[in-house]
Amino acid sequence: MRYTIYYLITLAFFITPVRAADFSNNDFAQSINFTWLLVAAFLVFFMQVGFAMLGAGIIRVKNSLNFFTMIFMDFSLGALAFWAVGFALMFGGSNPSIGLDLGNTLVGYSGFLLSGQANDNYSAGFLLFQIMFAAAAVSIVACAVVERLKFRAYLMYTLAVTMIIYPIYGHWIWGGGWLSQIGVRDFAGSGAVHAVGGFVALAGAYLIGPRLGKYDKDGKPNVIPGHDITYIVIGTFILIFGWFGFNAGSTLAATDLRISVIALNTFMAAAAGATSACFLLMSKSGKADITMICNGALGGLVAITGPSAYVAPWAAVLIGLIGGIIFVKAYWFVEWKLRIDDPVGAIACHAANGIWGLLAVGIFADGTYQGVTGLIAGNTNQLYVQSIGAITAIVWAFGTGYILFSFIDHTIGLRVKPEQELQGLDISEHGISAYPEFTSNTRDGRQQ
Amino acid sequence: MRYTIYYLITLAFFITPVRAADFSNNDFAQSINFTWLLVAAFLVFFMQVGFAMLGAGIIRVKNSLNFFTMIFMDFSLGALAFWAVGFALMFGGSNPSIGLDLGNTLVGYSGFLLSGQANDNYSAGFLLFQIMFAAAAVSIVACAVVERLKFRAYLMYTLAVTMIIYPIYGHWIWGGGWLSQIGVRDFAGSGAVHAVGGFVALAGAYLIGPRLGKYDKDGKPNVIPGHDITYIVIGTFILIFGWFGFNAGSTLAATDLRISVIALNTFMAAAAGATSACFLLMSKSGKADITMICNGALGGLVAITGPSAYVAPWAAVLIGLIGGIIFVKAYWFVEWKLRIDDPVGAIACHAANGIWGLLAVGIFADGTYQGVTGLIAGNTNQLYVQSIGAITAIVWAFGTGYILFSFIDHTIGLRVKPEQELQGLDISEHGISAYPEFTSNTRDGRQQ
Amino acid sequence: MRYTIYYLITLAFFITPVRAADFSNNDFAQSINFTWLLVAAFLVFFMQVGFAMLGAGIIRVKNSLNFFTMIFMDFSLGALAFWAVGFALMFGGSNPSIGLDLGNTLVGYSGFLLSGQANDNYSAGFLLFQIMFAAAAVSIVACAVVERLKFRAYLMYTLAVTMIIYPIYGHWIWGGGWLSQIGVRDFAGSGAVHAVGGFVALAGAYLIGPRLGKYDKDGKPNVIPGHDITYIVIGTFILIFGWFGFNAGSTLAATDLRISVIALNTFMAAAAGATSACFLLMSKSGKADITMICNGALGGLVAITGPSAYVAPWAAVLIGLIGGIIFVKAYWFVEWKLRIDDPVGAIACHAANGIWGLLAVGIFADGTYQGVTGLIAGNTNQLYVQSIGAITAIVWAFGTGYILFSFIDHTIGLRVKPEQELQGLDISEHGISAYPEFTSNTRDGRQQ
Repeated sequence: MRYTIYYLITLAFFITPVRAADFSNNDFAQSINFTWLLVAAFLVFFMQVGFAMLGAGIIRVKNSLNFFTMIFMDFSLGALAFWAVGFALMFGGSNPSIGLDLGNTLVGYSGFLLSGQANDNYSAGFLLFQIMFAAAAVSIVACAVVERLKFRAYLMYTLAVTMIIYPIYGHWIWGGGWLSQIGVRDFAGSGAVHAVGGFVALAGAYLIGPRLGKYDKDGKPNVIPGHDITYIVIGTFILIFGWFGFNAGSTLAATDLRISVIALNTFMAAAAGATSACFLLMSKSGKADITMICNGALGGLVAITGPSAYVAPWAAVLIGLIGGIIFVKAYWFVEWKLRIDDPVGAIACHAANGIWGLLAVGIFADGTYQGVTGLIAGNTNQLYVQSIGAITAIVWAFGTGYILFSFIDHTIGLRVKPEQELQGLDISEHGISAYPEFTSNTRDGRQQ
Repeated sequence: MRYTIYYLITLAFFITPVRAADFSNNDFAQSINFTWLLVAAFLVFFMQVGFAMLGAGIIRVKNSLNFFTMIFMDFSLGALAFWAVGFALMFGGSNPSIGLDLGNTLVGYSGFLLSGQANDNYSAGFLLFQIMFAAAAVSIVACAVVERLKFRAYLMYTLAVTMIIYPIYGHWIWGGGWLSQIGVRDFAGSGAVHAVGGFVALAGAYLIGPRLGKYDKDGKPNVIPGHDITYIVIGTFILIFGWFGFNAGSTLAATDLRISVIALNTFMAAAAGATSACFLLMSKSGKADITMICNGALGGLVAITGPSAYVAPWAAVLIGLIGGIIFVKAYWFVEWKLRIDDPVGAIACHAANGIWGLLAVGIFADGTYQGVTGLIAGNTNQLYVQSIGAITAIVWAFGTGYILFSFIDHTIGLRVKPEQELQGLDISEHGISAYPEFTSNTRDGRQQ
Repeated sequence: MRYTIYYLITLAFFITPVRAADFSNNDFAQSINFTWLLVAAFLVFFMQVGFAMLGAGIIRVKNSLNFFTMIFMDFSLGALAFWAVGFALMFGGSNPSIGLDLGNTLVGYSGFLLSGQANDNYSAGFLLFQIMFAAAAVSIVACAVVERLKFRAYLMYTLAVTMIIYPIYGHWIWGGGWLSQIGVRDFAGSGAVHAVGGFVALAGAYLIGPRLGKYDKDGKPNVIPGHDITYIVIGTFILIFGWFGFNAGSTLAATDLRISVIALNTFMAAAAGATSACFLLMSKSGKADITMICNGALGGLVAITGPSAYVAPWAAVLIGLIGGIIFVKAYWFVEWKLRIDDPVGAIACHAANGIWGLLAVGIFADGTYQGVTGLIAGNTNQLYVQSIGAITAIVWAFGTGYILFSFIDHTIGLRVKPEQELQGLDISEHGISAYPEFTSNTRDGRQQ
């Protein structure tokens, strides 16, 4: 487009009135919407480094590169897998805009490798956006099984989630499947992405068992300190930044002027979640622990993801405030009651708040967007169907996750050997350490 | 929007010509402008992590999480406060687009909690953008009082700035208030955000006093080395990135094609500020200190913020070159002459260059945008009214800041105890350290 | 724009139908395209911090700030130089949209300092976007000469590249010059940016010689471990994020709906490059080295840059898969066979894959965009002219790079003294160390 500048002007910039007249309103709408959708996709991609920093900071230095590598490969391998298979299962047959007409309410089956009528400009952008969502679901699970999962097991699990587990539930709720047909609403994926990811994570963390030293013989959990809290905070900032694209981009169009309310709701819920977590902690211990504040913000974000388009800003604040508290309580419950070792808090953040987000649609939807109404507007039915969506997410994700991780465990194995776990996975799985200049000539504990 | 894909196409993408015809030019303009405004808001939000990294890097490791927490909570608590109160005081009564008609030239008083006629799509996006500006003003102050301010005092101060101090000056200059009526121009806030933040910071830093060990008995300042210079540089990169949204987003509309000049001016001023700081340092010491180069870039950015729409690129270069030098000189002046301890250089960067930016409008405005002309176009009056705007910012911000910090000092107290300051605020205020894995089993000075 | 809100509405938001009617389709196209172009420019700017982190992480801590400073100054000084001179040489005379009609197929010569008819809104945005490309070319070279280049030499080299070397090849291929006239196609710069940067880097690394201790007396290379692998990964994430702007922004217009395919192709190539590098390494050593995975992704990105608009997603996957392997092989070739010390792998990444990208246009272009066809569409001529473009890039960039670095060597000198190299350039050139808090009171090797 740029090499011959004459071309550039004539074709692209439409400076001349003659050419401009050819450009119909329809084309304008597409240009605006492509811009919005693509920028949103870029932002959602950027969340990947937020996940990576959040998780790497919260765990020990000896496993930090392992976590970075998991996140890097889940979007890399996951992109290929979702392009090849997942996209067709999720949207094939249900999306007239991409010209696919084979499919039913259980699963789609056209558009593999972006073939056939899916080979157009719109499908390309839509696929890009959807790849990022699939990658997010995988990354959530990484948070719960890190510091002990074999890297090869992670690659296998990435394929399963991006090709089957995520797309099929996604088809049900977003691809014209049975959940959408009974009226379940999940705007940007409290259920489809976060609850699904969170309950697969629960199955994985349960099956792989806690890290060495996490629990005493009497079942009391020990604190395993992370290695870089600043990365947790920076990662959270990046996640909030990317979440604007995740939620507001889910209109897929800027001609839907609701994008402004969605973006505001997203931010208010994050702010409210951070605030409620902060004051809850200060009221208990007098200390404002920034890791919990960050997780409070993330809890609020997960919770607002599903209802973000359907509720008013005041409701977003309330949903976020509750989301922050849910994180703190659920984190404690998972660690002390369930005794499941979830290093980065994926279950409390994504599973618990994902369900809360699905239900919140049924409570706070006020009818200002697409006519969806909840309890506050006097409609009890929406909360009922949302509950069906929530239960389905739990059963599907935990069930398939349980089968998947059991299968991996019985084939290539889930967990590294104890000596590898003690040494750290950076060395044993990747042959490298995070701060290599400091390994040979210092004894400062960095490579303990 | 996504669950039923049929809906998606019909409502959002306007693929069918019939639907597209319904979409008027007016709607297109709004779609474009919402896209621009929201992306800009996301970028301005992202500046928060730039502030956080810049400040945390420049201070000692023992207080780095405290700074991160301050920044995280100032946008979280600040968002709730500005939504509830500040927005109404700043724009209530003066903004017909959000349907508020109660207000006067001193203060607005409608739209609390985004209520009444402010409950629409446009107001939501506008509020989101404005929240980020309020949060930036608060973050500036954090830079000057860090390493010794009580966290609870910070929360109280955040409320005061986002609910009262920032919105009221903002109303005067941007909300139809008296400064705007006499013709003061401050495009994106050299005065409204940076000078106001900078002079509140001056009051705070003066009242709280220097950090232990900063000044010898004879008043000579000591260098207190930061802990991570790479964070300073990365933070500055992020701030430049976000500043594009800060300045070019302040048109609030992409249909205002001046956005390209504003973005270019912003970048040229940053580049020029870095360059002048670099050569100034190299001519003096032969060493190109990257912390001062970064601050030179930031000085240029603060200076161009106010005039960015009104001046030509060559003027932006000049404003930036001078901004870089102003930072270097002002930093020295504050540290050696005023003997005020401002760890992150907020006063030199934001107060001094904020005033320079306000005045630069009166000098370099060339009449190509909204008819604003300065000295170079033969108009002396603009510089005169800009001076009134500048003096007002100084008096208002320093005055209210002085009252605010005095009030906090006499109630819950401003400063942590000396033993807490020596220990570091990360432990005493937040119960955590930045690199916790390294605290218990090493003696490498990280937790000195 | 914001101070008088009445103004805001009337001028910018076009809420009133009367005003909207004045806004022609032509204006809408410009608004959309400015939004796209500017956001893309912001993203390409953000790649600078990606380069900075990638490089700083891969080298030793004692030179990490030197690298950050090089990157910071190359865009700062480079912006001023490209604005003053480079832009005119590159686009002057060939770009009717910016009203410059002096120029020929070898070099442009109008529009210095954005003067004359280049003084308009469109040129401002276009210049901003182009500055970022020039800065990227300079940053590539920094990767190859770091840890031993004098900082003053870097400043001189920055001026030469942004004022002469990059713009002249750029004019040939993008500014209406002879390469574009014989039909060479390089959509976003596999050749113009990456190959040019990569071969200048080759000349520089060859002339400056390897770092002390890199090669044994028998020519065997030693591993010099970097200091922060997490920075390499984060830098790569940021580079991918920014590369969306680099490639998809190169339409310069969102009204060109190909942007979605370009963005998807960009991402698929990155994912494929990471995947092929990962499996190549695992098949050899069983270890998935994240630094090589990241470089594989970058290799894929460099390779897809030129063909991104002309090929289908399946071809992008193939180009990326090969790009990842090319990186691994070329890196080994440069280090073991050429015995050139290229600390950050610029030659393998940008030179080798830049050439691959140019050739890939001639192989995979399928005729769906601007009628460009390659081997797969039965056209052999395109590959032939692409080869001319590639050879020209090699000769021009290596030749001028050789002259430039020889000139610098004979005037101010290229290389720091051995004792400075041992001490590290952070102290000797910048008078500061990356983690200053840890220098005076610890002996943990950080400042070895």
